[in-house]
Amino acid sequence: MEPLRFEPKDPHFEARVRASFARQAAMATIGAQLHAIEPGRVTLLLPYATALTQQHGFIHAGMLATALDSACGYAGSTLMPAEAGVLTIEFKINLLAPAQGLRFRLCGEVVKPGRTVTVTEGRAWAIDAQGGEKLVATMGATLMAVTGRDNILH
Amino acid sequence: MEPLRFEPKDPHFEARVRASFARQAAMATIGAQLHAIEPGRVTLLLPYATALTQQHGFIHAGMLATALDSACGYAGSTLMPAEAGVLTIEFKINLLAPAQGLRFRLCGEVVKPGRTVTVTEGRAWAIDAQGGEKLVATMGATLMAVTGRDNILH
Amino acid sequence: MEPLRFEPKDPHFEARVRASFARQAAMATIGAQLHAIEPGRVTLLLPYATALTQQHGFIHAGMLATALDSACGYAGSTLMPAEAGVLTIEFKINLLAPAQGLRFRLCGEVVKPGRTVTVTEGRAWAIDAQGGEKLVATMGATLMAVTGRDNILH
Amino acid sequence: MEPLRFEPKDPHFEARVRASFARQAAMATIGAQLHAIEPGRVTLLLPYATALTQQHGFIHAGMLATALDSACGYAGSTLMPAEAGVLTIEFKINLLAPAQGLRFRLCGEVVKPGRTVTVTEGRAWAIDAQGGEKLVATMGATLMAVTGRDNILH
Repeated sequence: MEPLRFEPKDPHFEARVRASFARQAAMATIGAQLHAIEPGRVTLLLPYATALTQQHGFIHAGMLATALDSACGYAGSTLMPAEAGVLTIEFKINLLAPAQGLRFRLCGEVVKPGRTVTVTEGRAWAIDAQGGEKLVATMGATLMAVTGRDNILH
Repeated sequence: MEPLRFEPKDPHFEARVRASFARQAAMATIGAQLHAIEPGRVTLLLPYATALTQQHGFIHAGMLATALDSACGYAGSTLMPAEAGVLTIEFKINLLAPAQGLRFRLCGEVVKPGRTVTVTEGRAWAIDAQGGEKLVATMGATLMAVTGRDNILH
Repeated sequence: MEPLRFEPKDPHFEARVRASFARQAAMATIGAQLHAIEPGRVTLLLPYATALTQQHGFIHAGMLATALDSACGYAGSTLMPAEAGVLTIEFKINLLAPAQGLRFRLCGEVVKPGRTVTVTEGRAWAIDAQGGEKLVATMGATLMAVTGRDNILH
Repeated sequence: MEPLRFEPKDPHFEARVRASFARQAAMATIGAQLHAIEPGRVTLLLPYATALTQQHGFIHAGMLATALDSACGYAGSTLMPAEAGVLTIEFKINLLAPAQGLRFRLCGEVVKPGRTVTVTEGRAWAIDAQGGEKLVATMGATLMAVTGRDNILH
């Protein structure tokens, strides 16, 4: 993880991200929690739950992607102006190992902020009973800042 | 949608896919249902649900990705031998429009089957109250057939 | 290949694409030629050349990607206003089979045009001495229309 | 850039990579040179050349992708057994800024080595006349190790 070097445009970015995250019903459905919010980096925690599994008992790739997409999206959001909404243009996820573990740490980070387009990267680690961590997925996500649309805010 | 031209190796592919889908707890969690299973193509239906939304009330990109990844994975699985398990190596999803609608149709299709690596594509359409359809997402997913591992079967 | 259903905003899209393609020195370097320009679809031809190969004598994945990226970019450009320049935000390419053949047909197609962001897909076929075609690569590319920057025009 | 932590299986990985790179005619065509070979990381240098440009005079995204794909592929190759050939399954590239500069540094790095599938990441920096560096592209590439095929070696 490289050191962060971003200046937020909106001093209230943390409160704005927390409020938006609380409105993402999908995060409550999967049980993801906000862990850390820094300028250009957001970390979530996701406990293992049977409700999130695929046929082999691992966390479904799409469920990891759901949490990673939110981590990446909010990482981008920390650097956007207060009035901007953020939409995902696209993301790609690589699954490196079966998503087995007690819980998962998901980190999204801005690679390149932009007025319209922001590029981010995410990583997911599985955490075992001894606290050992294993990288299980990587993501690259492209975001778009949207302004002036009432139904797409934060 | 191009015509299909694949011969399944396992005549019981449909029963095998149905049984595996029934074991994906994530599909029950999001409310996705199997709609059609053909050699090289699988279609799911996903009703809109508040539990799946992001902060603007659209279906979360990751939730669409979860359903599309299963559609693509099972499309690949229809062409694999009976003893193979299928894992997603990676997928990329493009979000074309906000995922608003009464329900969603998700179609995964094999582009290139392979002994080890299978390449698939997926499309998601939003369906409105009048039955009108709108393409809201496209996916490209790469799958790996896994054999000889007891914990990764079907 | 699905039927096209796009209306160009600029009636002179074909001349505009031809002029821009002629300014892409990279196309001359790899030997790619414009084959067909329709609203939302552009096809290139690329003869096999040793200068484009990787270590096994197949066309280098990046060289196929170069031609496919241009096909996709110009497919998007056909639907943009006359004054817009087009930049690639990102693309993903899947290599389905070794790129062997006498020449290659590369087709880029618009999936979803947009004022700012346009989503396209590309396919590359290898053509053998008998005229037989084999799909060797698929691409998904996201484009951005740029206006008001003098150094990014068409 | 994170510290490397990989043990090569083949002590002669550097000579093997150099010999294979020398057989990639595409690298000579674009003017890319090997700069550094470490276990799990390969760096190339690419001088700016008009022959590689798109219509605005920037390096064509596909040409950057060609160099990055080789950097990623050889990064993976450093960790493979001597008898394995390496093929790219897929890659995605994000273009962060116009590729302008005197020359470019392209670095490929292994994220997760595997017996069959290896996941890598690449970054491209533009270098200006004062030696200043700017990140212009990121790549995620998935590789497959191929053994037992005479025409796909190293």
